[in-house]
Amino acid sequence: MPQRQVKAAILLIGDELLSGRTQDVNLQALAKFLAPIGVQVAEARVVADIPEAIVVAVNALRARYDYVFTTGGIGPTHDDKTADAIAAAFGVPIDVREDARAILQAHYKSASPLNEARLRMARIPEGASLIANPVSKAPGFQLGNVFVMAGVPSIMRGMLEDVGHRLEGGAVVRTATLRAKGLREGDIAAALGELEEAADGVVTFGSYPWFSPPDSFGVHLVARSADADALEKAAADLARLIESRGAEPERSE
Amino acid sequence: MPQRQVKAAILLIGDELLSGRTQDVNLQALAKFLAPIGVQVAEARVVADIPEAIVVAVNALRARYDYVFTTGGIGPTHDDKTADAIAAAFGVPIDVREDARAILQAHYKSASPLNEARLRMARIPEGASLIANPVSKAPGFQLGNVFVMAGVPSIMRGMLEDVGHRLEGGAVVRTATLRAKGLREGDIAAALGELEEAADGVVTFGSYPWFSPPDSFGVHLVARSADADALEKAAADLARLIESRGAEPERSE
Repeated sequence: MPQRQVKAAILLIGDELLSGRTQDVNLQALAKFLAPIGVQVAEARVVADIPEAIVVAVNALRARYDYVFTTGGIGPTHDDKTADAIAAAFGVPIDVREDARAILQAHYKSASPLNEARLRMARIPEGASLIANPVSKAPGFQLGNVFVMAGVPSIMRGMLEDVGHRLEGGAVVRTATLRAKGLREGDIAAALGELEEAADGVVTFGSYPWFSPPDSFGVHLVARSADADALEKAAADLARLIESRGAEPERSE
Repeated sequence: MPQRQVKAAILLIGDELLSGRTQDVNLQALAKFLAPIGVQVAEARVVADIPEAIVVAVNALRARYDYVFTTGGIGPTHDDKTADAIAAAFGVPIDVREDARAILQAHYKSASPLNEARLRMARIPEGASLIANPVSKAPGFQLGNVFVMAGVPSIMRGMLEDVGHRLEGGAVVRTATLRAKGLREGDIAAALGELEEAADGVVTFGSYPWFSPPDSFGVHLVARSADADALEKAAADLARLIESRGAEPERSE
């Protein structure tokens, strides 16, 4: 029996991602972390540090997907609005929690004391469980199917250690990538479409051209499947297709 | 009289962005292009190459924002579903259009002929205007307040040349960034919150910590405003705040 597909959404929170100040890298890091444990990212959104925008997005996504992962907005400053917005989205109270306060208390020494601002990072919605932060200590949290993590990439990645074991994965989708230098998408489009159709959803195919004019161009052909045998057959089909157009297939993954 | 705020949404389309295969760079490039012409990115979404997902997202965003910019899914292969989805979202027919066909015809030589697959790139929803593509010729298009562009970053940036002059911008939000090495967010959070409150929406403040353990950490403080005088005052306030905590403010933008 084929395993069920487990789908997730990612919600990136922060003015800096929309203003162009900051290049997001968390979406890709999360997708790469989730794929091998059988959780597929089906949608992502980026919203500003505006409580209403966070509430609307969280409620839309948590109803639709198995898991929601948020990044950003859980620090000590006034623009960190995520924790309160998550509480509002779930309709539960939020307050400083003693176990979270104890974590911060142990971390902050007299040189940088646990002041009122830092104590905001111990505000946790009722019913949530903490997510350990091995980098800067201030915890994330899980409430229902929503995992609330930091936006700073090194901290977000650190928190994933305490997230992975909580997830129930499904079918693991693996990919095979074939690189074809000098090939153009339009030369293989019809044949690729036929492969997609013949695979009847067991394998899906993607085509990603690259351009480095004037001397280098080509296309990456990617097959994705939860069925290892079907994937290998698809990779062989792609290699033959590339050869039939006079290019040299290079398996890159 | 203050100029009105013009808000945009960005819709990034492509399985490869959600699988982790590809690191998106178009969101930041678009935000940086739009900011100086007075168009603020208020929301972004990433969806897979699934027509229904594209339709739902486009219709949600075009109703809510002044402009919507999409990237991805307008090539010649079977996974390029954006043009048809946009037509479906607007409820208009789509077919090969003669001016778009002529552009492709002039470009494709006998070595890589204008076959049926490539001709798909001339499928344009009824009522749209073409967006010139100086890189690989296949055009994007504008339909209503929606601008449909390529996903390959160099091509997307090329298309922006033919997009900028069509936009009616509003208030230009400028930023001032002050870098404070060795400062922690929690030490300035309360004072920063007071600045935000006193600015009463004319200036907004953001705080972005960085960590490169063990030796380097600090925070970037960013002020944003459409009012140049208010922005300069805010930058001076931030510099004083940083100095008052024993750090050296560096203006970085």
